[in-house]
Amino acid sequence: MGVIGLGLMGSSIVTSLVISGHQVVALAPIAADLEQAPGYLRRHLERAQSLDITDRSVDYYMDRITLTESYQDLKKCALVLECVIEDRHIKAAVYDKIESQVAEKTIIGTNTSAIPISSLQQYLKYPRRFMGIHWAEPAYATRFLEITCGAETDTELAREVSVLAENWNKEPTLLQKDIRGFITNRLMYAIYREALSIQENDGVSLRDLDKAARYDMGSWIPLMGIFQRLDYMGTQTEMKTIRALMSKLSNRTNLPETMEDIVRDEYRGIHNGKGHFNYSPKECEKWKEAFSRFNRDMYFLSEKYAEFKPSKKEEIKS
Amino acid sequence: MGVIGLGLMGSSIVTSLVISGHQVVALAPIAADLEQAPGYLRRHLERAQSLDITDRSVDYYMDRITLTESYQDLKKCALVLECVIEDRHIKAAVYDKIESQVAEKTIIGTNTSAIPISSLQQYLKYPRRFMGIHWAEPAYATRFLEITCGAETDTELAREVSVLAENWNKEPTLLQKDIRGFITNRLMYAIYREALSIQENDGVSLRDLDKAARYDMGSWIPLMGIFQRLDYMGTQTEMKTIRALMSKLSNRTNLPETMEDIVRDEYRGIHNGKGHFNYSPKECEKWKEAFSRFNRDMYFLSEKYAEFKPSKKEEIKS
Repeated sequence: MGVIGLGLMGSSIVTSLVISGHQVVALAPIAADLEQAPGYLRRHLERAQSLDITDRSVDYYMDRITLTESYQDLKKCALVLECVIEDRHIKAAVYDKIESQVAEKTIIGTNTSAIPISSLQQYLKYPRRFMGIHWAEPAYATRFLEITCGAETDTELAREVSVLAENWNKEPTLLQKDIRGFITNRLMYAIYREALSIQENDGVSLRDLDKAARYDMGSWIPLMGIFQRLDYMGTQTEMKTIRALMSKLSNRTNLPETMEDIVRDEYRGIHNGKGHFNYSPKECEKWKEAFSRFNRDMYFLSEKYAEFKPSKKEEIKS
Repeated sequence: MGVIGLGLMGSSIVTSLVISGHQVVALAPIAADLEQAPGYLRRHLERAQSLDITDRSVDYYMDRITLTESYQDLKKCALVLECVIEDRHIKAAVYDKIESQVAEKTIIGTNTSAIPISSLQQYLKYPRRFMGIHWAEPAYATRFLEITCGAETDTELAREVSVLAENWNKEPTLLQKDIRGFITNRLMYAIYREALSIQENDGVSLRDLDKAARYDMGSWIPLMGIFQRLDYMGTQTEMKTIRALMSKLSNRTNLPETMEDIVRDEYRGIHNGKGHFNYSPKECEKWKEAFSRFNRDMYFLSEKYAEFKPSKKEEIKS
C-alpha cells in the first residue's frame, strides 16, 4: 500500500493500513511533511494502542512503514492513495509521478472530498484504475469509508477495494456514479435544508432542532441506518406517510438571512468561538476532546451490534 | 398527573412519571385495559429497575399509581395526558369527560402522532391549555419529548411543561406551530426523500445508504445534533457548501416504483418479515431485542455527554 501526503489525515490513513496488517510506503511530497511525519505517525499509533485496536507495539508498526520522498518506492504497491491538498493541479502532478512508477494494474485512489472524481480522472493515463476512497477521521477508529467511481472507473475494481476495505474494519459504501456531495453529505444537506425551513417558518429554535436530531434520530440511526429503521417501524405505513408528506418538504434554494450573516461574518464555529452557538476558548477545546472520546465509545458500541445487518442475499430490488 | 389509556405506550408513560416522583392517576377507558394494566405496569417498572433508573422498589411505585376507570379521580390533577387510540371521535369524547372533572387551569396533553393538534383543539372547551406532548418509546428510557402547540395553545403553558419535563430526564423540544409531521419526522422524511433519489438515480444500494447513515451520520449525531455539528466542522465553509448544493437536492414528490410495490404488497418490515430487506422470524425477534438493548446503551451514553450542550444564553438569533 502506498500513501501520498502525510498531513494529519494521510498519517492517520497510514496508521489504519499498517495496523490492518499491510506494509505501507508513506510518501511525503514536501520536505516539511517528511520531518513531521514520524511524530504524527507515532501519536496516531499510540492513540490506536490506547483504543485497544492494535495487536503489536508501536515500534513494530513503525518498522513496517517506509517513510520516503521518492516515488520509486511505490513501484511494488497494489494500491496507492493520494491525500494531498485540495488543489487539482497539485493532484494532477502527483498522479503523473505515481503512474510513471507503478504497474498498469495498480489501483489509485484519492481522498478528496471537494473535487469530483470524474474531473480528476482526466489527469490519469489509465483512468480505469482511479477512484475516490474517502476516509473519515481518525481513519483507524471510524467504520465509514466511501468509495466513489468516476465516469471511467472500472466498477469491478471499485468492488474489489470495497471487499479489501472490510479487512480494514470498515463498512464501505460504493457509489457507482460520481454525484456532487457524495452520499452522506447529500443526506446531511437534505436534513439541513429542512431544518433551516422549520427554523425560519415554524418557530423552532436551533437548539430544539439539535435536540430532536440528537436524542430522537440519534437513538436509532447508529443501529439501523434509515431503511432498516423503516423495516423496524413497519415499512408500508411509513412509506405511505413519506409519500403524503413529500410535497410538504422544503424545496428552498437559499439560506435564511441569519445564516447569510454567519457566512459574511466568518463564523467558524469552535474554530473561532462563533457559530450557530457561541463558545468560550475553553469550550472549543472541550468539544474537540469530547468528540474524540465519543468517537471511541461509538466505535466499540458499533462493534457490539456488528451482526445486525442485512446479509447480501436479502436486499430487495435495488 | 393523570394518564388516560393504559396500552403499552400509556403504561410506559405512567412508569416514567411515577419514577420521576409523581403520584399518577392511571385511567383505563375500557375494561380490558384495566385488567391488563397492572401486568404492563409491573413489567415496565421491572425493566426500569433493570436499567438502574429507579430509586425505590416496584411495589413502592405501584402503590403510588391509582388505577381507575373513573374520570372523577382526575379532579386534582395538574396535568392530564391522553394516550388513547388515534381516532378523533374517541379522543373528543375523552376530552369532554376530562374537562367535566378537572380545574380550568389543568393542562391537557395528547400523545398523538397522527392528528394535528389544532384540529383536536377544537373539541376542547378551554383550548388554551391543550397541547401535544409526544413521547418516544419506552417513555422512561428515552430522552426525547416533543411538545407541540396548536393554534390556540398558550405558549407560556407549553414552556412550563417543557421545564417540568426536564425533571422527567427529558430533553424536550418545543414546537410553537403545529406543523405536519412534527420536527423529527420532517427531518427524517427529508433524508428519505434524498436517499430514495440517490438510490433511483445514482446506483447506490439501500444497504450502502444505510451504512452511510449508520456509520457516518450515526457517529456524530447523538453527540452534536445538526447545527452544533456545523459549528464543530467550521460553520462558514459548511454553510457555503450547503447553499451551493441546495438546488441540487431532490424535490421529488413521488415514491420510486420499488417502494410503491412495497406499499401495494403490504410489506411491514420486521412485523411480517418483508421490508426493504427480508427477515426470518428469528431475525425479526432479534431486531426487537437488539433495539431494546441498544436503546439502553444510548441512554447511558447520552448521560455521559449530557454536559455538552449550548447554555440558554448562547444561542444566536433564532
